[in-house]
Amino acid sequence: MKQITAEIIAIGDELLYGQIMDTNSHWISKELDQIGVRVVRKTTVGDNEPDILHAFRHAQNRANIILITGGLGPTKDDLTKPLLAKYFECSIEPFPEAIADVKAFFEKRGRELTPLNKLQGHLPTKCQYVKNDRGTAPGMWFEENGCVWMSMPGVPHEMQFLMENFVLPKIKTLFSLPVIYHKVIKTAGIGESWLADMIAEWEDQLPSHIKLAYLPSLGEVKLRLTAFGDDINQLQEEVNQYIQQVKPLIKNYIYGYDQETIAEAIGRILTLNKKTISIAESCTGGYVSHLVTAIPGSSNYFNGAITPYHNQFKTALLGVKESTLMAHGAVSEETVMEMASMVRKKFDADYGLATSGIAGPGGGSPEKPVGTVWIAIANREGVKTKKLQLAHDRLLNIQYSALTVLNLLRKVIKNEND
Amino acid sequence: MKQITAEIIAIGDELLYGQIMDTNSHWISKELDQIGVRVVRKTTVGDNEPDILHAFRHAQNRANIILITGGLGPTKDDLTKPLLAKYFECSIEPFPEAIADVKAFFEKRGRELTPLNKLQGHLPTKCQYVKNDRGTAPGMWFEENGCVWMSMPGVPHEMQFLMENFVLPKIKTLFSLPVIYHKVIKTAGIGESWLADMIAEWEDQLPSHIKLAYLPSLGEVKLRLTAFGDDINQLQEEVNQYIQQVKPLIKNYIYGYDQETIAEAIGRILTLNKKTISIAESCTGGYVSHLVTAIPGSSNYFNGAITPYHNQFKTALLGVKESTLMAHGAVSEETVMEMASMVRKKFDADYGLATSGIAGPGGGSPEKPVGTVWIAIANREGVKTKKLQLAHDRLLNIQYSALTVLNLLRKVIKNEND
Repeated sequence: MKQITAEIIAIGDELLYGQIMDTNSHWISKELDQIGVRVVRKTTVGDNEPDILHAFRHAQNRANIILITGGLGPTKDDLTKPLLAKYFECSIEPFPEAIADVKAFFEKRGRELTPLNKLQGHLPTKCQYVKNDRGTAPGMWFEENGCVWMSMPGVPHEMQFLMENFVLPKIKTLFSLPVIYHKVIKTAGIGESWLADMIAEWEDQLPSHIKLAYLPSLGEVKLRLTAFGDDINQLQEEVNQYIQQVKPLIKNYIYGYDQETIAEAIGRILTLNKKTISIAESCTGGYVSHLVTAIPGSSNYFNGAITPYHNQFKTALLGVKESTLMAHGAVSEETVMEMASMVRKKFDADYGLATSGIAGPGGGSPEKPVGTVWIAIANREGVKTKKLQLAHDRLLNIQYSALTVLNLLRKVIKNEND
Repeated sequence: MKQITAEIIAIGDELLYGQIMDTNSHWISKELDQIGVRVVRKTTVGDNEPDILHAFRHAQNRANIILITGGLGPTKDDLTKPLLAKYFECSIEPFPEAIADVKAFFEKRGRELTPLNKLQGHLPTKCQYVKNDRGTAPGMWFEENGCVWMSMPGVPHEMQFLMENFVLPKIKTLFSLPVIYHKVIKTAGIGESWLADMIAEWEDQLPSHIKLAYLPSLGEVKLRLTAFGDDINQLQEEVNQYIQQVKPLIKNYIYGYDQETIAEAIGRILTLNKKTISIAESCTGGYVSHLVTAIPGSSNYFNGAITPYHNQFKTALLGVKESTLMAHGAVSEETVMEMASMVRKKFDADYGLATSGIAGPGGGSPEKPVGTVWIAIANREGVKTKKLQLAHDRLLNIQYSALTVLNLLRKVIKNEND
């Protein structure tokens, strides 16, 4: 089956000058992906004729569907409508229905229809008028030069209304679409290249209609499988078979699937096992607790946390032995072990998490350079520790340490259950 | 003066499929705008040869500067490097310096260099190797076909490192850019429209070569003054004169200038006054502490924090009276006052911060709906409290409450010093 392709064109100087972030193109991509249309390009151009016409001309050669956002306001600098008319060689005329709708829109809000707004009901004669219930800039649908075209306002909720109520249903009726199935495997605690080495053979025997992508981000690597075909159930089954094959190769690193974050996975696992946690944070300074408590329902498994930033409070509030701090220092396996087991007891939790390190930029020494971090997980049996040697960026050190201690908790629970 | 133009090319199927939002292009746009480079187009293409080469070819005809992100991982699906070599008709050879840096990057983390990663030190012979301190994918700088080109990884913090430390300074030296002077006034605790009313007269008499932009974000509004001319010192002087005029009109809301965050401002003020803080967090769950400890040097004024997520620990660890919790509940002025004053004493600090609220989505009631938050600042004299009535988004409630309690601390200190 022929792959149906789409191109997204976002118009507006404010998008190029970094004043507004174009979230529309991302939203549209996701929606098209869900119905099996492949987006082949996104283009952002400014409010000027040559660039806009150039974008139209080239999009037409690449895609079956061209979706345009922005440049539809009533003011002079909005060029999308006149340039669509110019490009399709037609005039702009009053559309009585469109004018009536704009008028009604204003009346509903007790406002007078300005001459400028009345012009929003004047449209290129070759377009099909599409009513915008959320605003005064109409949608315009064209079927020209072998493509379908839709022009929509840049205001996200207006664009979304037109997509959901007109464009997506229309596309489904006009095109016979392939089925696309995505599955994302989320891994933590291993780098992209190690992962690639581990699954190289498996990757090599993937069929051509199933694509694998590595999507690395701080502390984790996503493996995205994308399958193309025409039977969703068959694709789903096929992809899941390949996932069953790859699982044993990397089972210690998989924490979840699709959209799940490591903090959500921890929440799911703790809820499933009816367990609770508490946290003693030094170098992470509250960030681990934040990741945990950002998840709805975390109060069911998160008892609390202490951030004793100075040694005196590690002793006074957590009960870490002064002798331990004297002998080994705050950034040491011995100290982080005591922090983890003491905070577990203090909050009467099943697991105690602890971090102690030198986030930087200051505080480093030859034997303990910036980026030296100890993390620990205490359960009722004992304490598991890990040493990290990170770089010099304070915030990244905090974030990476936090993700890693959550992943260590996941592993500890996994070993208990294996 | 000739306008220097740039084009941004983002590469990766995941961007077209809507799996990852391209925040890089937006960030780059803002940075280029700051130094007077005009972005004329942004293009996003997938991981395939014809589209990538097409994007290179056309960008070359439009822009002086071409910035490329993504497609640089060590794995099979990353095409940027081979296609740059193909496009500039050169081979890919080992760059000893690049290999050494990748090797060092791994050694520092106590890991073995895999063959796959070693290949990241092999680069197109026509490129200038640019070291990436934040990762293993190098930056590649080209001066070819009348343009300058920079290829950077798609991981935001790696791209930002290369932009800030190499690309932006390099562009400033290579091109004669218009003189632009930016000054940002940062305000908190007041909405955009109120602010606009307060400074309307002042705004009206700004000269045409000084532009004012309102940049609202969660809990704050930035006022950005942008002056255009040809003498930086003169522009600076002029802008600062206008700032002196506007200051008295909004002095209670200004917390800092330019890049300074509210947490940085708090740090500056506490250091200046030689004061310390401690924090008791309930609904914010560690996020206030994170904002504070993310700032280098915070250990000089941050003593520590307790997050007693359940009432029993508010009593056991902070000493909040059971009777208070019984009579008024955890989310109440009485409880948050005790939390603030108790945590101040526990950590022997000058100021105690506290938050208690219903972040949502669950836990609301008719008299205390989701979004009800109490915040407090205790000093040696007493406690200042504030009630917030926020919306239903858990994360936004957490973030807004955290920023607001920091701003309340700023006001309390300001009143002490006035």
